Amino acid sequence: MEQSQDNPFTFTVDVSEAKLDKYDHHITRSLSEMSGQYADQPAYDSALAREDVLLYEVYETSRPENSGELLNGISVLHPGKVGDEYFMTKGHFHAVLETAEVYYCLKGEGMMVMETPEGDWAVEALRPGKVLYVPPRWAHRSVNTGADEDLVTFFVYPGHAGHDYGTIEVQGFRKLVVEENGRPKIVDNPRWRSPQNGR
Amino acid sequence: MEQSQDNPFTFTVDVSEAKLDKYDHHITRSLSEMSGQYADQPAYDSALAREDVLLYEVYETSRPENSGELLNGISVLHPGKVGDEYFMTKGHFHAVLETAEVYYCLKGEGMMVMETPEGDWAVEALRPGKVLYVPPRWAHRSVNTGADEDLVTFFVYPGHAGHDYGTIEVQGFRKLVVEENGRPKIVDNPRWRSPQNGR
Repeated sequence: MEQSQDNPFTFTVDVSEAKLDKYDHHITRSLSEMSGQYADQPAYDSALAREDVLLYEVYETSRPENSGELLNGISVLHPGKVGDEYFMTKGHFHAVLETAEVYYCLKGEGMMVMETPEGDWAVEALRPGKVLYVPPRWAHRSVNTGADEDLVTFFVYPGHAGHDYGTIEVQGFRKLVVEENGRPKIVDNPRWRSPQNGR
Repeated sequence: MEQSQDNPFTFTVDVSEAKLDKYDHHITRSLSEMSGQYADQPAYDSALAREDVLLYEVYETSRPENSGELLNGISVLHPGKVGDEYFMTKGHFHAVLETAEVYYCLKGEGMMVMETPEGDWAVEALRPGKVLYVPPRWAHRSVNTGADEDLVTFFVYPGHAGHDYGTIEVQGFRKLVVEENGRPKIVDNPRWRSPQNGR
């Protein structure tokens, strides 16, 4: 083909290995980076004392950060629990609040926990073949409710969206997903702080 | 969950059946809507005289058409040929030229034929697990090169992108994909008109 400064490109998802054959960024988050996010602090402390376990990995391609571009990649959330709370991602609002995100679930089983600045909340189940639309304004966190399998999702969001992790770090999500009698259950987060914006 | 005007939602892709369990639009294109797009006009005429066959179907969810939203759905391109040219989509530029599109191939085998307003071109192969990034400015058309299987892709593009079908209707794509000795081959389109914009 002829040369151009910005050519189409492809990469391949190996779903069973949860890997891409090409990517620009490989972001990893381990237990020590989730301080204060799990409800059971003694369980968190003792788990961290044993090992700073890898919770999840994100593979992303690099694109200009403007509204015509689509940032995309895969998220690989490993299975496990801290106390009875399932492994989860940090979760975030977009810095440009009025931007959406789309997920296509490739492997595993889990839930997306979502919340608006006004305190509305929603939880949707994820399993392979399921598409989840996170509308503008909804913070989102994935939770792996599987016993021993990675939760792998393909995600796409607008190039100008950006990330706001700070709000969730301070206020937490309103709902947690815990294991009860071997099954996931959505419960109130006792440490949730009602957001400053809104009611 | 609490009520909100714009809640998260999910739908499920049944890949083997090439269907969604929920969608807002079902767009279909049959042979009669592709007049002038296939290179072999006598083959097109005789195929159409036999049957106005369904070439492809698009299932899409409806969202506001602004830059914070992501339009998404699946495209199902059926197998077949007109003469030795494989079944293909109409193909288009985005009305807002500076907008990208992302494809995740779910089933089948095919190619994406792409082209800029300056006449640069690219062709990328599609097969399950492959992600294709179509950068801003590239017109795109999918081609099903499989013998007897649908080409199914999940697509995402910015809400404000829009469609410009007219430019391709007039000028065609620079490259065609034809079957030669049982295999796909990229050839020049003898009827391609050099674009007015650019060189």
